[in-house]
Amino acid sequence: MISEKMKPLVQNNSAIRIMFEEGKRLASIYGAENVYDFSLGNPNVPAPEAVNQAIIDILNEEASTFVHGYMSNAGYEDVRETIAASLNERFGTSFHMENIIMTVGAASGLNIILKTLLDPGDQVMTFAPYFLEYGNYVRNYDGELVVVSPNRETFQPNLKEFEEKIGPKTKAVIINSPNNPTGVVYSEETLVQISRILTAKSEEIGHPIVLLSDEPYRELAYDGVFVPYVTKYYKNTVICYSYSKSLSLPGERIGYLVIPDELEDAKAVTAAAVIANRVIGCVNAPSLMQRVIKRCIHEKVNLDAYDRNRNLLYHSLREYGFSCIKPEGAFYLFLKSPQEDEKEFCEICKKHNVLVVPGSSFACSGYVRISYCVSYEQIQRSLPAFKKIAEECGLI
Amino acid sequence: MISEKMKPLVQNNSAIRIMFEEGKRLASIYGAENVYDFSLGNPNVPAPEAVNQAIIDILNEEASTFVHGYMSNAGYEDVRETIAASLNERFGTSFHMENIIMTVGAASGLNIILKTLLDPGDQVMTFAPYFLEYGNYVRNYDGELVVVSPNRETFQPNLKEFEEKIGPKTKAVIINSPNNPTGVVYSEETLVQISRILTAKSEEIGHPIVLLSDEPYRELAYDGVFVPYVTKYYKNTVICYSYSKSLSLPGERIGYLVIPDELEDAKAVTAAAVIANRVIGCVNAPSLMQRVIKRCIHEKVNLDAYDRNRNLLYHSLREYGFSCIKPEGAFYLFLKSPQEDEKEFCEICKKHNVLVVPGSSFACSGYVRISYCVSYEQIQRSLPAFKKIAEECGLI
Repeated sequence: MISEKMKPLVQNNSAIRIMFEEGKRLASIYGAENVYDFSLGNPNVPAPEAVNQAIIDILNEEASTFVHGYMSNAGYEDVRETIAASLNERFGTSFHMENIIMTVGAASGLNIILKTLLDPGDQVMTFAPYFLEYGNYVRNYDGELVVVSPNRETFQPNLKEFEEKIGPKTKAVIINSPNNPTGVVYSEETLVQISRILTAKSEEIGHPIVLLSDEPYRELAYDGVFVPYVTKYYKNTVICYSYSKSLSLPGERIGYLVIPDELEDAKAVTAAAVIANRVIGCVNAPSLMQRVIKRCIHEKVNLDAYDRNRNLLYHSLREYGFSCIKPEGAFYLFLKSPQEDEKEFCEICKKHNVLVVPGSSFACSGYVRISYCVSYEQIQRSLPAFKKIAEECGLI
Repeated sequence: MISEKMKPLVQNNSAIRIMFEEGKRLASIYGAENVYDFSLGNPNVPAPEAVNQAIIDILNEEASTFVHGYMSNAGYEDVRETIAASLNERFGTSFHMENIIMTVGAASGLNIILKTLLDPGDQVMTFAPYFLEYGNYVRNYDGELVVVSPNRETFQPNLKEFEEKIGPKTKAVIINSPNNPTGVVYSEETLVQISRILTAKSEEIGHPIVLLSDEPYRELAYDGVFVPYVTKYYKNTVICYSYSKSLSLPGERIGYLVIPDELEDAKAVTAAAVIANRVIGCVNAPSLMQRVIKRCIHEKVNLDAYDRNRNLLYHSLREYGFSCIKPEGAFYLFLKSPQEDEKEFCEICKKHNVLVVPGSSFACSGYVRISYCVSYEQIQRSLPAFKKIAEECGLI
């Protein structure tokens, strides 16, 4: 019954999601407090209180048929205007309403822009380790994902290999900083170099290469690290933003695309993206949540909670002999596996009721991803288990 | 910059949406009260009060990280269980949680099931007049939409032509009852005949043909007309439901798929559909609205308001000499155009600030769609304009 294209997806169902279901199963056996599930990027820090207050205010102050009704497929104009103004204020850009398209999260934003841009056989590049769904998104439009191998020293992108792999079929590049799964933030120098390479290569191959910046973790950056705003470095950039993490609303599916005026054929691309939003079946981003964004444009989640988790986990794991680079952003820690095959290491972890995701799920074997968007207490409770795992792996 | 597949979509942008933008433009010139916009299916009847109360109760009673968080891609289990139980109670079915997948509205539900089922070149059939987006949804997966010509007498499906057009490439059929744009409800006899044809043809061509029932208007039926539940007539049925109209929440993008156990390969189809939901970028249906559905499972919009509109509009237009069949469901009236070219008629209407959608936007020329999901007062105010239009067309 099912299509040939779907068959491999069913066979290789997302390891992360399988782990999520596994976590629920283990919790039902051992009790939730005795299972240390670090597998999913489901924020533990609640949405700012202002979010729920905004919802209540909206329901009291705005008409039901407006709040829950259709609007232009690109989203409410006042919401888009508010987002543009906020970006301009924060990053010195000069966006306006027409540059913003509200989307059903960043995943949908990526699908919309890929549908807009890709012809069959077009190549989209990305840097390992990366969120494996990118491959599925690209294949939705019969494109091919070309992966640049990881730089295991710094987890900054491997720019030499990147430059070499760009060819006439390259249509777009997806970057993700702060990065899932490494927590690394791309430096300004990295963006300057990516821009230089893309500008030269676009010239060489005779068409623009579009840089897609997937930014669900933009606001989750620690120790004052600078997260450059990508449109300022390369004109053919499209931003795919989500409030899933910045406002802890992952289930609500709310985000936006930024298509700057500077992008080649910006008007046509914007018109096509609005239609793509409709045609892939989203129609528009959820209406009430759009209204919430307008009222909560200055809100932030409690970053200190993640930061405290980050420090406890990082320092404890280092103390037990594990190695990893300290994450600067997002809420992931990318741990080097003591076993050569990190899937074996994941099985050892699971024996101790610790759930982590193998790096091969991000095209980077030899590592595991630990999501620390969990309670501080879960991390505290899990430390003896991590210590036992370290002992079992001969690190202590 | 934009893909070859998107180019025709940009050129033929939805006439309905263009009209929506046109309505906003005219309203800004003449004042909203002097523009009679009957072009869009944006419910004018507000959501039941219980919806906003449910939202407030949820925010007070359920944890923020739960209400706004990720859940299984298929949706919250308790929500799906509640929907299954409600369907069983109302229609005597025997669904359970696993048969229900929460979706970003019915448009997304259709995309999910089409992505699940279609290989390139597969044919999907539908009956004119039909919602033209079906063609875009099918082409998203490189399928071909095969349209059965309209029966202009009754607007029940033309079953003889349907039977003749089914061939080895036929994979699915989309039906929509109560129907957009005609307001017609498919009779039990129609469903029995469709089932008979599909059963015989599936046997003949050697694979099951799946009946996709697009049901955003299921609850909008008048005069006690019976709207048969399609899974009871044909086992290879998938229901694509939306709360857009039944709870007046079109902007919120909330609906579900029903994949019955009786469907061939039901388990594999369900697993693939859940993955398709994720991979097309929706990830899951908006979380807060899922929680709302659980609490508002017995709620209904005020159907009397639509019914009153229906009667006023139908009787007035008949009085002015127009012809149309009386709609039994949805909130559309499909008016026979007095001019042979209904687009000319639309232009005459527009001169009188009346916006209606040409039937060619539903593959049925010679008619126009009038959406009566507007205020009773708008219909009252528009009647002199309709009368003048009738005079200009020589009907009076």
